[in-house]
Amino acid sequence: MAFRTRIRVRFGDEDHARIVYYPRLFHFFHVAFEDFFNEQGHPYRHVIDVERVGWPAVHVEADFEQAVRFGDELDVDVWVARVGRSSATFAYRARRAGETQDVARARVTVACIDMETFAPRPIPDAYRELFAQHGTQPIDAR
Amino acid sequence: MAFRTRIRVRFGDEDHARIVYYPRLFHFFHVAFEDFFNEQGHPYRHVIDVERVGWPAVHVEADFEQAVRFGDELDVDVWVARVGRSSATFAYRARRAGETQDVARARVTVACIDMETFAPRPIPDAYRELFAQHGTQPIDAR
Amino acid sequence: MAFRTRIRVRFGDEDHARIVYYPRLFHFFHVAFEDFFNEQGHPYRHVIDVERVGWPAVHVEADFEQAVRFGDELDVDVWVARVGRSSATFAYRARRAGETQDVARARVTVACIDMETFAPRPIPDAYRELFAQHGTQPIDAR
Amino acid sequence: MAFRTRIRVRFGDEDHARIVYYPRLFHFFHVAFEDFFNEQGHPYRHVIDVERVGWPAVHVEADFEQAVRFGDELDVDVWVARVGRSSATFAYRARRAGETQDVARARVTVACIDMETFAPRPIPDAYRELFAQHGTQPIDAR
Repeated sequence: MAFRTRIRVRFGDEDHARIVYYPRLFHFFHVAFEDFFNEQGHPYRHVIDVERVGWPAVHVEADFEQAVRFGDELDVDVWVARVGRSSATFAYRARRAGETQDVARARVTVACIDMETFAPRPIPDAYRELFAQHGTQPIDAR
Repeated sequence: MAFRTRIRVRFGDEDHARIVYYPRLFHFFHVAFEDFFNEQGHPYRHVIDVERVGWPAVHVEADFEQAVRFGDELDVDVWVARVGRSSATFAYRARRAGETQDVARARVTVACIDMETFAPRPIPDAYRELFAQHGTQPIDAR
Repeated sequence: MAFRTRIRVRFGDEDHARIVYYPRLFHFFHVAFEDFFNEQGHPYRHVIDVERVGWPAVHVEADFEQAVRFGDELDVDVWVARVGRSSATFAYRARRAGETQDVARARVTVACIDMETFAPRPIPDAYRELFAQHGTQPIDAR
Repeated sequence: MAFRTRIRVRFGDEDHARIVYYPRLFHFFHVAFEDFFNEQGHPYRHVIDVERVGWPAVHVEADFEQAVRFGDELDVDVWVARVGRSSATFAYRARRAGETQDVARARVTVACIDMETFAPRPIPDAYRELFAQHGTQPIDAR
């Protein structure tokens, strides 16, 4: 089951074309990624600073299907499309609240690293279990 | 031949892990995209506001191979990997100045739109010619 | 009475010194400014695009008393310290949730402009009334 | 004599009102602050990470006199209006290249801190000397 969080698009998120500046959409996905941990028993700061486990992005694929605008409320669904030994692929889907059309989708592969050394490390079991709970895409996914 | 621009990584570009926040790398690629136009006879503001031609990103793929850090000077190469009727795929490669290893690569497909209507439109000849001049990847590309 | 909103400090809000990059604090205050309207019957996008009333910042004063960090939850209080004919001064105070020490304070004077012409205009009565309801600082302000 | 650097305003620097989002102007001033060090023999990363001297902002005052827009080239002048024992006040003035009217001005007081402890420390002589060379405002300042 996907994890869902809501993001309010802000006045400063747009660019000169008056749609959301596309790098900002990746910020939204990162916020959703943080909340995936924050709201499921693993405050993201604790993950990084106490558990010393980091998750840098190493590969990204994204489709932007509709312009996103200031004032939009986005529901962002997060699931874990793939779990490897020391990496995982998070999937994201954003829709306007209450609507059924995707405005943006992304897959972000993150490495699992030791924050002391920045070297890859196996995904700890606690996160592996968390990810396994969110391994399937939303049932209404296209 | 690829177009090249240089970007200085700033104090505020890093995140809590003290490497560049990955959405910021897409900002760098957008800056390089703007300079591709700016420095080749098509100031990007003029493209958008006077020519009324827009280039929203519709698909993105990226690989982040090495951490980028505050103080790094990046050489970003830009070329046009594909030109269609009303879309084009820009390719980006970032390396630290004077080094031969890629730190990040991306392919960003942009639609060509009419800024009055936001509807797709054929790529104007002036840009088609510009893109054709930059159709090949750097000779030292991996 | 001050209006209050809560802001979660994100992974990417910090800079190389691992404290919030100070321009980002002004973003937080702007988010609080938007919510002041959003959550009191005047969705900010409607204010700008339908009512055609804009509020650009013309003068800013701020004190940053404590480092703000990723993972902090900030309570931001907003009140209107001064209302003029065609400008107003918003006051902001940020504290960590549940704490009594200010981490940051700001006063931001905004002009009231007509979004068609960008010329100053008198503050419409609806906003003047809204501002009057929030004219006093929090009772626990230093 | 003031130090000058140039900043190109980017597509993503604007907000929904199609002028630069005001927190972004503080980013521009920080970039100018970094270049003040970078281009005068003290690469800012070296200042922070090797010399272990930090400069967090503690007080800010700014006036925004004219809208700044995508495509503008700003000349930012930087000088040091005041040097104390363990703090200094940097002054900034931005004008469009070749123009004589200020678009934005700011004064940012920074504390001088030890990056190991984040405690205030006396400004090292090397920086005190650098600041003294830039103690006067531009001769054409209003």
